[in-house]
This record gives sequence, structure tokens and C-alpha cells, in this order.
Amino acid sequence: MAKDKAPRRPRAESPKGFRDYFGAEVTERKAMLDAIAEVYHRYGFDPLETSAVETVGALGKFLPDIDRPNEGVFAWQEDAEGDKPGDWLALRYDLTAPLARVAAQYRNDIPSPYRRYAMGPVWRNEKPGPGRFRQFYQCDADTVGSGSVAADAEICAMLADTLEAVGIPRGDYIVRVNNRKVLNGVMEVAGVLDPTDPERFFAERGIVLRAIDKLDRLGTDGVRALLGEGRKDESGDFTKGAGLSPDQAEVVMGFMSAKRETGAATVARLHELAGGSAIGLEGVQELEMISELLAAQGYGPDRVEIDPSVVRGLGYYTGPVFEAELTFEILDEKGRKRQFGSVAGGGRYDDLVKRFTGQSVPATGVSIGVDRLLAALQAKGRAGDASAGPVVVTVMDRERMADYLAMAGDLRRAGIRAEVYLGNPKNFGNQLKYADKRGSPVAVIQGGDEAGRGTVVLKDLILGARIAEGASLEEWKARPAQQEVPRADLVAAVRAMLEQG
Amino acid sequence: MAKDKAPRRPRAESPKGFRDYFGAEVTERKAMLDAIAEVYHRYGFDPLETSAVETVGALGKFLPDIDRPNEGVFAWQEDAEGDKPGDWLALRYDLTAPLARVAAQYRNDIPSPYRRYAMGPVWRNEKPGPGRFRQFYQCDADTVGSGSVAADAEICAMLADTLEAVGIPRGDYIVRVNNRKVLNGVMEVAGVLDPTDPERFFAERGIVLRAIDKLDRLGTDGVRALLGEGRKDESGDFTKGAGLSPDQAEVVMGFMSAKRETGAATVARLHELAGGSAIGLEGVQELEMISELLAAQGYGPDRVEIDPSVVRGLGYYTGPVFEAELTFEILDEKGRKRQFGSVAGGGRYDDLVKRFTGQSVPATGVSIGVDRLLAALQAKGRAGDASAGPVVVTVMDRERMADYLAMAGDLRRAGIRAEVYLGNPKNFGNQLKYADKRGSPVAVIQGGDEAGRGTVVLKDLILGARIAEGASLEEWKARPAQQEVPRADLVAAVRAMLEQG
Repeated sequence: MAKDKAPRRPRAESPKGFRDYFGAEVTERKAMLDAIAEVYHRYGFDPLETSAVETVGALGKFLPDIDRPNEGVFAWQEDAEGDKPGDWLALRYDLTAPLARVAAQYRNDIPSPYRRYAMGPVWRNEKPGPGRFRQFYQCDADTVGSGSVAADAEICAMLADTLEAVGIPRGDYIVRVNNRKVLNGVMEVAGVLDPTDPERFFAERGIVLRAIDKLDRLGTDGVRALLGEGRKDESGDFTKGAGLSPDQAEVVMGFMSAKRETGAATVARLHELAGGSAIGLEGVQELEMISELLAAQGYGPDRVEIDPSVVRGLGYYTGPVFEAELTFEILDEKGRKRQFGSVAGGGRYDDLVKRFTGQSVPATGVSIGVDRLLAALQAKGRAGDASAGPVVVTVMDRERMADYLAMAGDLRRAGIRAEVYLGNPKNFGNQLKYADKRGSPVAVIQGGDEAGRGTVVLKDLILGARIAEGASLEEWKARPAQQEVPRADLVAAVRAMLEQG
Repeated sequence: MAKDKAPRRPRAESPKGFRDYFGAEVTERKAMLDAIAEVYHRYGFDPLETSAVETVGALGKFLPDIDRPNEGVFAWQEDAEGDKPGDWLALRYDLTAPLARVAAQYRNDIPSPYRRYAMGPVWRNEKPGPGRFRQFYQCDADTVGSGSVAADAEICAMLADTLEAVGIPRGDYIVRVNNRKVLNGVMEVAGVLDPTDPERFFAERGIVLRAIDKLDRLGTDGVRALLGEGRKDESGDFTKGAGLSPDQAEVVMGFMSAKRETGAATVARLHELAGGSAIGLEGVQELEMISELLAAQGYGPDRVEIDPSVVRGLGYYTGPVFEAELTFEILDEKGRKRQFGSVAGGGRYDDLVKRFTGQSVPATGVSIGVDRLLAALQAKGRAGDASAGPVVVTVMDRERMADYLAMAGDLRRAGIRAEVYLGNPKNFGNQLKYADKRGSPVAVIQGGDEAGRGTVVLKDLILGARIAEGASLEEWKARPAQQEVPRADLVAAVRAMLEQG
């Protein structure tokens, strides 16, 4: 073996699929989360913060089989204690699984119904792709322990209020509501659900649910094929269908296109389609009630509407299903106009706690895709400008560092963000380059001459940005690039420059 | 095999050493982090949010050896890709290691000096104990790329401002500063550091550093023993000492007790002790300069002082070392008075990026122990009351849910936290119990009679709490337990009750 092998240096890289967030990326997201939390709080929801780590058993969906339970989650086994093998632990993959655990663990302590909100990162052990990361934020609000449709209506109203609070104006979004029970009714009418024998047609219903979920991707012809005999994709692979007759398939297809001009007309159409089934009728009535409760509070179809074409999550939820879509157009990476699309979704899932306690507990909730919503705000240019750089006090004379620190201190005490240049002060150009990199609006300069006169020079760095943005020559002339002011007027003069900017 | 084995239910438990935070626990911490971030921001520090997950190689301290690198960190190996074994990943154990990685990875993009702050959870794979959790918050500010003592002075001033911003008044805290270079000088004078041969006495210096670090626990006699021949503990175990003669040991002990009445006197004493060594002299001069820079900005010894008895971290840092202590007394769990102690610490560490790039980059920073600081504020009763419960609109008549939702909506639009009771409304007593559990200040009640009269009844629930706290009979009498007001006056009447509360 080589004796003096140089130690290998580690790569300075974040792990594949993870990224770092700098400056305004952090503050803009925080501002959005704060605005959301404020609305949730006003609705009576309480914050809950669980740890990032859960036992794999509590997470549920991903049980350890032979080797390790790493399908979709980041998981590891704790060290054994004596004979007892260590627990498998994992990073949470959403905020709902920890809520289920908490609702079971503290069922005697939490209020019932329990309204809680949670915001924070979740982790997915998936192949990363462009714009797809393995850690991302979720922001959820759920009501556990209420079976009332008023709880569903409340979530819809809160979702609308939340979107407006973060800066999406009314008209630029729509909360769409559908109901899994109506689909069940439709399946009963279509003959693939037998209320007297719930196990019958189980496989067929699975194919129907998966087919519906692919509406966006396959279009109506593709879904129709999957409802019938099956579908051959472009590669020639064949996916077996649910085996519905054309008439049966038509009932299911009719459900997804049941939306009419008004909510009342849509309800009437759904009644036609699914009213013959008890569960279907229940679903239609729930949609009607949600609609009425919301209308009574002024949440009309300009904000919340019944839309049976909402199919995402119908396989997962057990009652009402919600989706919030942004309706304005943005330009995609190829410059084509497209609608921004979905930023939040949720619904009712009544078996949340059952796996832990055996008892069914009704629950309903919504999850906001924080990063997508933030991207939408940025696309509309509505994200807050939380990124203003600090005033930079430059260092002309290393011996007078205390004076420069005092200037920054005075500015800060007046609430102005400020800092002293702390790199090597020899090259003054580097100091101005630094100020530029920091997005600094003003540089403060005091050499020996100014110190002797008791003054400071303020260099306007906003102006440079303005000129780059195309300020007129007049504006440029009317605005001195720099000015010398008495040291005692430092704070007032800087404030005036910031206000002008 | 048994055919109908019932599926085993998972335990609804958070993993050992992890905990959940509810309601005010979340909002109080958030309020504190917001206040800290505001100060950091004003000082020109920019937020940085790295992911929870790093490669074990980048984390550094814990390299994979034979099996798995789980000493102190939570780590796991990614799946192999073909022949290539998967990377070892781990949860970050502090916020400094990710900063080092970022400072190396983005060295051409970030400003230099780079002031950044970071706040968030870190994870330690350690045996949990009472009050010791395996996930906890840290809140760091660091300046990377400045070797100037002005950067150290700035951190000290910012730390003082931060403590005051979160609610620790001047006089209740002290930022203490020491310097590793002075200790090096002391070791040179004591004869266990040879500037011409840095490797010599390496083992002895290690023992000296470890001994000093145990001052709190072992007292001066214990440290003196470890500096000399060694020390036998209560169990009879013997720890080998550094082998210093009594005279040599006295020099080291003198360092730790060098604090005098004034900063100038302390500096003079340190000069006596370590001024004979070049590195020691440098350290003394740094302490003097930090002191001067701070004094010039008004940070006198009532807020920041030179204190050579600060020994924590001297083994890790390379220059100035800081520690913030809360000086007020609290009662411990046994009712005894004791000082609250340390809530933040930091210092200069000039080899941050070197492991990645080979280049030395100076850095200095501080880490605030968020949970300890929060506990201190709670002990002083100074944590904000962010926990006010919502106004609860009770449900007397299930058919008029829309009316109740509208009441809550009116209150919310006026900025008042409010919710409708969404449990089973049959038992009205349960609704009031719920309101009580929620910490609700006011319950709104509207039965059929009130609805007919166009009124609502407001029940004062603050009063109940007041009586429990010992309100006088007069106060009780002067305050109606409930009042009936026109529905149109709901918002105004509730607001009046909240203001009275």
C-alpha cells in the first residue's frame, strides 16, 4: 500500500435531487407561509409541528419487507438493543401520515373536532428530474373528527381566502369541488358496484379509477378505451380495460363531462346520472349542500364551483374532493401560453386513524403545493421584494474601523439594513463590486478628507440599476450619482435616498 | 400458517427521542425565530436554507468505515446504480457543516465576505434523555471570508442586540469573549507548545484542552490534577494527566482566572501571562481590539466583556470565542435558585472550507440554542401569548349551519379568530367543553328564539378563567356572564368583550 496517499477531498456538492435556497428564495417562501398561516389561524386552525422522522410502522404505506423499506421513502434501521432489532425509521413523505399518528396518539387530549395546520419539508426517495426535488415544502390544513359537510365547505372557503391573501386576486383562481360518492353512484348505475356485495367488481373499479385519473394524459378516447376492452399505447404495449360495454362506459364518461353552466344545472345533471344509487344520491346532496353553505357566505361560482371533471385524488378520497387552479396564463419555457394549473388539492378521507385504533374517524383537509404557488406568484411578478440589499459602509482607512462600524450601527438603529465591508479593504473597486453583488442601494464612503471635514459621501447604487432598466437622461441628470453630507446627517440622507429609490 | 391472522396495528407513537409541538409551542418559537431573523437581516446577513440531507462525505466528521457511519448521525446508503455503490446520505447534525459545503460549492458566486444566517432543525443520533431530543432547532449567523476582528466584534454586538430583541433586557445577559490564541500563548509559556515544532507536545495539549473543557464539571482541583499527573474519579478510574509541573500548571490555571475588574485590567493580566509568546500576544491584541470596537459603538462591559474563564469551544475554535449567558436566576425543578446559564456560543474557525478546496478561508459565527432561549423566556414569563383561542360559534340548530358559518365569517373578516363547532351538535354541554379546551374567549349562541328575535347570545368564557385566577366578587358582578345582542352587532360586541378581557 502507498504510504503517503494524500487524503481525498470530499466533493462540495449537495446530494442528487436536493438543492439550496439563498436569500430572497428563503424570504419569499417565508412571507408566503406566514400569510397562509395567518388565514389558517384566523379560521381557528392550530399549528402542529411533528418531527421529520417517523417509525416506518407509523408511516404505514411503506412496510419493511425483505431488505429495507426504501420504496419511495428515505429509511434506515436503528441499531439493535441487545436481542431487540432496531426500529426502522424514515423521513416523512407527507404531512398527512404524521397527522394520522398524532390524532391516534393524542386522541384523549386534543380537542374534537381538531383543526390543525402544518407546514414544512417532506422527503421523497424518487428519481429527481428537472424542477423535481427530493425535499420540498407542503402546507396542510385538516379538520379531524367532523363528518359534517360544513367542514368541507369551510376548507373550500379558507382555500379561496388563502389564495387571495398570498396575492392571487379573485378571478385568477377557482376552487373546484367533486365527490367520490357521486362516482361510486355512477359506477353502481354502470353496473360495476354492487352495494349488496362490496367485493364484487373490485378489480373492474380499480381499472375505472386508474383510467379516470389518466384523463389529463390520455384524453377522453384513451379513457374510453380503458373503460372498455383496453388500450394499446404508442409503444405497442397493451393495457387491459375494465370490460365495460359502450353503454356502461358512456355513464362513466358522462360523469366527467357533467359540468353545466350553473351549479344547479350541474347538480341536476349529476342527479340524472347517479341519483338512482343511494350512495350517488348522498354524494349529489353533499355537493349541493357545500354549494349552498358557500353561497350563503358569499363564495359564489366565481370562487368555488362544482366540477365533476376534477378527477385527481378520486381514488384516494372517500367524499368531497377539492382542487384549486390558477386560471391565468403564463408563458412556458418555450414561450407558449398555458394555464398555470393546480396549486392545491384535498378532500375527505374518513379512515385516517383507523389503522392505529380500529376506529373510523372522519377527516377532511387540503394541501397547498407551496413551491408551485410561489412559482405562480413569481410568474405573475407578485412575489414580494424581500431581497433589498443592505447599505454598505466601505472601508477607506483600516485604522478607523470603529467609525465605520458606528455608521452601520446608526443606520441599523434607524431600522435601515446596513453592514460594513469586512473583506480586505485595499482595493476599493472590489468594495464597490461587493456592494453591487449584494444588491446594495447605497454605498457610504469616508476617506481621510471627508473625515477631516466631518462628512461622508453617499454613492447612489440604485441609479445604476435604474439606468440599466432604461431610466431617462433627465432622470439621470436630476439625480446626483453621489453626494457629500455631514456625518450627522448620514441616517436622514440615506433614508431620503432609499425613499427616492 | 393461520389463515385469518388479524393484521397487527402499528403503534401510534413518535420515534424514541422525537417529540411533537402543538399550538403555542409552535407559534412562540416562530415568533422568536422571526425576531432573531429581523436582527440578523438588519445586520446585512442573508438567509440560507440547505436541505436536511447531506452526503456523509460532505458532512465530514463521520466517515463510513466498515459497516455504516451511524455514530452520532442518522445515515443510510442510497441504492446502487448498476456497479456504482450508492452514496451514504445523512441528516445534518448542525448548520455549520452545510455552510462549509455551500461556501466551497458556490465559492465563485457568493459575495465575499459572505454573511449568512440559517435556522432550522438538526438531528443527532444519540441516546435521548429527559429534555434531550434527537431533533432540535439551531439558529446560526456566520461571516465567511473575513479575517478581520471587526467581524468578530460585529457578531458579539449582533448577539447582544438579538437577545434584547427577543425579550432579554440589558442586565439580564452578558456576552463573554475569550481567545484561543491567548491559550496557545499560555501553553507556549507553560512549555507545552513549541512554535518551531508544532507537532511536539501534541498529546499533552490535547489533554490540556480536554481538562480545561471540564472546568465546569470538575472544578479547579480536578482540572489541576488533569494538568499534572492525572485524576482518579469517584469510581476509582484513573485519567492520565498532561504531566505538567505545578509551576507549568499554575500558568494554565492562571489563564482561566485572569478576569479582573475592568477589561483593561484583564487585558493587562493576559499580557503578563501570554505576552511572552508571539501567538499569545496576537490573541491579547485581538481581545483588546474587539473590546475597543465594541466600546466605540456603545457596547460596554454591561453587555460584552472579556472573560478568560470562557473555556467551552476553545478546543474547536482558532481565535476569538464567544458565549452568551443569561445572568438572572430561575428556580430549577427542585425549587432551588440557579443561574440560567449559556444560550449561545460561537467563535472563529479558520479552516471551514479547507477540507473541500484545500484553501484556508477565515470564518466566524455564532449559534443560538433556540430551545434553551425559549425555555428561558418562558421561565421569565416573557414568551408571547400567541395562544389565544378562537371565538367558538356553537350550533343549536343543525339546519341553520349556513347562518353559523356566516357569523364566523363576519368575525374573521374583522380580523377576529373564529370557528364554528363542527362536531356532533346534539349535546350542547360538549360544545362548551370544546370551547373551553380550545381556550376560547367567547362562545356565540343562537337558538330558535334568538334567531326569531334577530339576536345572538355571547357567553363570556374569559370570565371563567378570571374567576379561576381569583377575580373579586365585584369584578364578577360587574361583568355579565352572558349578554344578548342584535345579530347586526355581533362583531362590535365580541370585539368589546375581547378588549375587556
